[in-house]
Amino acid sequence: MNTTLPSVRKFPFSELPEEVVRALEAAARRCRAEAVTMVTLPNSGHPAGSLSSMEMYLAVYGVADLTPENCSSFDRDYVAISHGHTSPAAYSALAAWGFFDPMDVVSHFRQCGSPFQGHVEREVPGIDWGSGNLGQGLAAGVGFALAQRARGNGGRTYVLMGDGGQTKGQSAEARRIASKEGLSNMTALVDWNHIQISGTLDEVMPADIPTLWRADGWNVLECDGHSFRELYSALRDASLCAAPTVILCRTTMGKGVSFMENTPEFHGKAPLGELYTRAMDDLGADPSLIEEARRRREGPIPKGRSILPTSCGLETGAPRTYTPDAKRTDNRSAFGHALADIGELNYKRPDGAPLLVFDCDLATSVKTADFAAACPDWFVQTGIQEHATATAAGAASIAGVAALWAGFGVFGLSETYNQQRLNDINRANLKTVLTHVGLDVGEDGVTHQAIDYVGLLRNFFGYRLVVPCDPNQTDRATRWVLSEPGCICLAMGRSRLDILLGDDGAPFFAGDYSFEYGKADLLREGDDGAIFALGAMAGRAMKAADLLADRGTRVSVYAVSCPLLPDDEALRKAVASGRILTCEDHNVASGMGSIIAARMVELGLAATFRSVGVHRYGDSGPSEDIIKAMGLDPVSLADAFESLK
Amino acid sequence: MNTTLPSVRKFPFSELPEEVVRALEAAARRCRAEAVTMVTLPNSGHPAGSLSSMEMYLAVYGVADLTPENCSSFDRDYVAISHGHTSPAAYSALAAWGFFDPMDVVSHFRQCGSPFQGHVEREVPGIDWGSGNLGQGLAAGVGFALAQRARGNGGRTYVLMGDGGQTKGQSAEARRIASKEGLSNMTALVDWNHIQISGTLDEVMPADIPTLWRADGWNVLECDGHSFRELYSALRDASLCAAPTVILCRTTMGKGVSFMENTPEFHGKAPLGELYTRAMDDLGADPSLIEEARRRREGPIPKGRSILPTSCGLETGAPRTYTPDAKRTDNRSAFGHALADIGELNYKRPDGAPLLVFDCDLATSVKTADFAAACPDWFVQTGIQEHATATAAGAASIAGVAALWAGFGVFGLSETYNQQRLNDINRANLKTVLTHVGLDVGEDGVTHQAIDYVGLLRNFFGYRLVVPCDPNQTDRATRWVLSEPGCICLAMGRSRLDILLGDDGAPFFAGDYSFEYGKADLLREGDDGAIFALGAMAGRAMKAADLLADRGTRVSVYAVSCPLLPDDEALRKAVASGRILTCEDHNVASGMGSIIAARMVELGLAATFRSVGVHRYGDSGPSEDIIKAMGLDPVSLADAFESLK
Repeated sequence: MNTTLPSVRKFPFSELPEEVVRALEAAARRCRAEAVTMVTLPNSGHPAGSLSSMEMYLAVYGVADLTPENCSSFDRDYVAISHGHTSPAAYSALAAWGFFDPMDVVSHFRQCGSPFQGHVEREVPGIDWGSGNLGQGLAAGVGFALAQRARGNGGRTYVLMGDGGQTKGQSAEARRIASKEGLSNMTALVDWNHIQISGTLDEVMPADIPTLWRADGWNVLECDGHSFRELYSALRDASLCAAPTVILCRTTMGKGVSFMENTPEFHGKAPLGELYTRAMDDLGADPSLIEEARRRREGPIPKGRSILPTSCGLETGAPRTYTPDAKRTDNRSAFGHALADIGELNYKRPDGAPLLVFDCDLATSVKTADFAAACPDWFVQTGIQEHATATAAGAASIAGVAALWAGFGVFGLSETYNQQRLNDINRANLKTVLTHVGLDVGEDGVTHQAIDYVGLLRNFFGYRLVVPCDPNQTDRATRWVLSEPGCICLAMGRSRLDILLGDDGAPFFAGDYSFEYGKADLLREGDDGAIFALGAMAGRAMKAADLLADRGTRVSVYAVSCPLLPDDEALRKAVASGRILTCEDHNVASGMGSIIAARMVELGLAATFRSVGVHRYGDSGPSEDIIKAMGLDPVSLADAFESLK
Repeated sequence: MNTTLPSVRKFPFSELPEEVVRALEAAARRCRAEAVTMVTLPNSGHPAGSLSSMEMYLAVYGVADLTPENCSSFDRDYVAISHGHTSPAAYSALAAWGFFDPMDVVSHFRQCGSPFQGHVEREVPGIDWGSGNLGQGLAAGVGFALAQRARGNGGRTYVLMGDGGQTKGQSAEARRIASKEGLSNMTALVDWNHIQISGTLDEVMPADIPTLWRADGWNVLECDGHSFRELYSALRDASLCAAPTVILCRTTMGKGVSFMENTPEFHGKAPLGELYTRAMDDLGADPSLIEEARRRREGPIPKGRSILPTSCGLETGAPRTYTPDAKRTDNRSAFGHALADIGELNYKRPDGAPLLVFDCDLATSVKTADFAAACPDWFVQTGIQEHATATAAGAASIAGVAALWAGFGVFGLSETYNQQRLNDINRANLKTVLTHVGLDVGEDGVTHQAIDYVGLLRNFFGYRLVVPCDPNQTDRATRWVLSEPGCICLAMGRSRLDILLGDDGAPFFAGDYSFEYGKADLLREGDDGAIFALGAMAGRAMKAADLLADRGTRVSVYAVSCPLLPDDEALRKAVASGRILTCEDHNVASGMGSIIAARMVELGLAATFRSVGVHRYGDSGPSEDIIKAMGLDPVSLADAFESLK
């Protein structure tokens, strides 16, 4: 696909020449007609904001070093869109710059099976981040800009935002990260039309937008957001500025269509019938466009580009082995050592990808401090700003760097569930490391007990989850996680653990062992039933098995590290033994027990079955006391198994 | 329990007299010793921030109209704590003001089974909001202040915050709501000690705190946070100000213990052994305090107060009945009509509680606009600021008003999952109304499809969930929801629906029907198997049953509106028929199907079983097209049922 527009890529002019302005203005008129037609055909979409942002999109996609040819590679400019509902403008602008045939999108917008979804998605060439939940775009841009800097490719990131979403707290968090990190390679543009769904900004929620950006350390420019000349100058000035720059673009909601201008009414409503004709008339466009589009809509739906998770390309080194005679350690520390190993192996290796590790003021607790010391340029301290961090780390992970964020369970997932959902939808490659999961959070109490991480992640289609059972498995799982594409969560508690041993008395998760996703590890074999134990519960299950053995009952113990993917083979074998107990220090209603039970029904397997886990909000005290109060200590587990009749 | 401190409640002095200052200073020394002892005994907790905030706590709990006698009633002042980890200071200050015996908390802090959890919880008299996940306290305060204003009781809300958490976006959102709503009955205090876990604020994440508060419309005062005289004056000035006021309290991290001052080290570390003795020496306190506390720790653990959800006390009126011959309507509109009915019935009724309805710029879509028109003083527009809204609405719901927040599924729950988790932990009474759930979001596409609301809510222990199956059930469920105590979520899609009919051809969910939580409604009876259909899928299941009947198979159809609580009786009956199909437009891995399957295993029931639902991220298009693409249309359902062998 080609464009007929004169190139303005990477600012070839100090000021925009008149003939270029005229060409862009003509393009804007065509794009407006396309955008209006796009929403009228399916009678669905957001025309007024699209018309408002139109020149911003055309200008940004023009000046950015982002082309149909380079848009699937890493070393180039990025464009993140925060107000994803203005997709008609984004799509038509991309088409104008040659990314695809405009009639593809005009004809197949919001059609089931089409890549041209109602909110921008990465399947569309040129769209770098799928959005639509307001407030995430700036944080995505921060992630891209950090990745560009880490790769040293000189690239710039542009972020387009609405003004209604300026009040989202996540945007403020992202501003501060950009400013603290000195991301002078960022330019944000705000479509400042002063209107949102329920009325004017001042009516709905007043905010002093320029002051807020300035207070957070940004360079603030203003321009007429419908003037290509002013937009180009502002964008060029921003590109030369030593601070991240926001351009507040004064615009008119519904610009170009008389009856849509300056009214919230057409935020999410298409102009139908006579109104469509009037709109096309206002835009000097031929209303028969919609007829052609309607015909083409019946034809084949264009395919989107394929977006696959990418591998990090890191050297992951040789595993460490923790032996039972050594001082007991915790999974967190085993993770931290492995991460530091990997950091040291890869830091500034000439041909390797950078590994960015994000921290929200918890490095010593989540054990990323050694990595930070070894690889200071790859460590990103984002403060107590989890929402922006989750999105920034996710976006970085698709921009040519490996990205890992470590935090407490309640912050890394519960607090940022929706950001992680968008990471998953965007097929990011983020490694989220959660410490302090389950009841094992020390004495911090109920608000800090992440007893829902399995229950949360089972809502996603891409994210994988690994809950290692001891430090040796943690070491190997950490190295595996950092070698795999896709979003993966590594979750662990706070306490020191016994090293799990095999029948031969040697560490089970060492020697020949290598981590395999989805495998339940048979720690002990017995014919009288089976216990499936999640993560660190495996050690307690082994002790319960000892107690049961003393009572003459010999049970198998399966250590489960991948609760989202039941091990069918293990399950069939366990079912044959007649009795199954599952145990986890996670909400039993949403955790592994219910996943295993549901899988049994799916496979048509039956056994006497019981799940034990967390069944109320927990206490604050030493972990072992809390575990006991919840009925999850070895004695309680043995009793629970014996209750299976 | 009594206090020996002179009363400063409700500002009896224009300036604090010298003898009162001296008494408070003596109390502060005692409280510091208690706070240090509290964390040293269990070797766990956060001493340095507690020492930093000590005078703030003593001053606020002193001036606030909050007493051991009135703290469980509604019409009084509220105190919300954002930096919940400074619980040692909060607890010792409350003890100093007579809320309980200081030795109870010194002896039983962070002990399993004790109400004195590591982060403040409502079981402790005087604690109005359980927190610990930073950034939520100001929003909770906004909720209290809104409730106070709606009740017209002249009460004031105080919020204590740390400075590290100032960067959380949710705090900025809360600031703006307070400012827009003109909550002059709010005073916030920031413990401005400039130190967080990883270093100074400027090192971790710089923020221009005074400018940010000012930009969001707050009156900003500053004072020495360790001077009772200055604190009292600032608090009194704030109480006379026409705008919400923040007092930036200049403090010293670890104040009073020489080796803790101005260092992040003791953020979360207890002084042990010799350090404890040195700390007590610095504080002029007797180190034998810990021995007495250690002895008492072995004794009975004090009970916390009982926190029960409260009923809203609203008149809920007579149900409306929608008939099949009327224009088809959607569940959203049925909800909106019922809500407006209830609003009109109760608005400014002299003896009734107010009903606050919160909106994040979606009123017309989520159908709260009629209520807003009928009850303008009860409608709270909070803009695109969902995190603060979720917490504010939750806090309001425990402060003597009924509170309802309506939003799209992805905003009301996915985006605010952790805020809703804290609402649940706090045993709030929030009614969360989610529209646009499942695949039924119009053409908005994947980012807007809330296919996880069942999977999210099954992680909570208190929240109930109602997914009505048609407009008649929606009407009745809405009235039920607004008459019940506790947190309840009412979830519905966007589309117009058929009215479900009984065998007699009359609307099933009308006439004698009344909503009963946990009951699966048998829409049709058949012996060849059963279909359990969630919410609006019930209509499709009925059509599938018609198709199956044409093929000679007669199935029962159960309409499930309460997926979190399987109906055991219905399940036993269905199992007897040998074949069960569950269907939902929700992620099948986390939704109703897996809940029913797990319950079957738990009950030892077996049947040929299949769950159908959403198994990948969805398309953007008309809902029926998307339903069909996902295999959830009536023909696909009938085929799925027939695949059960």
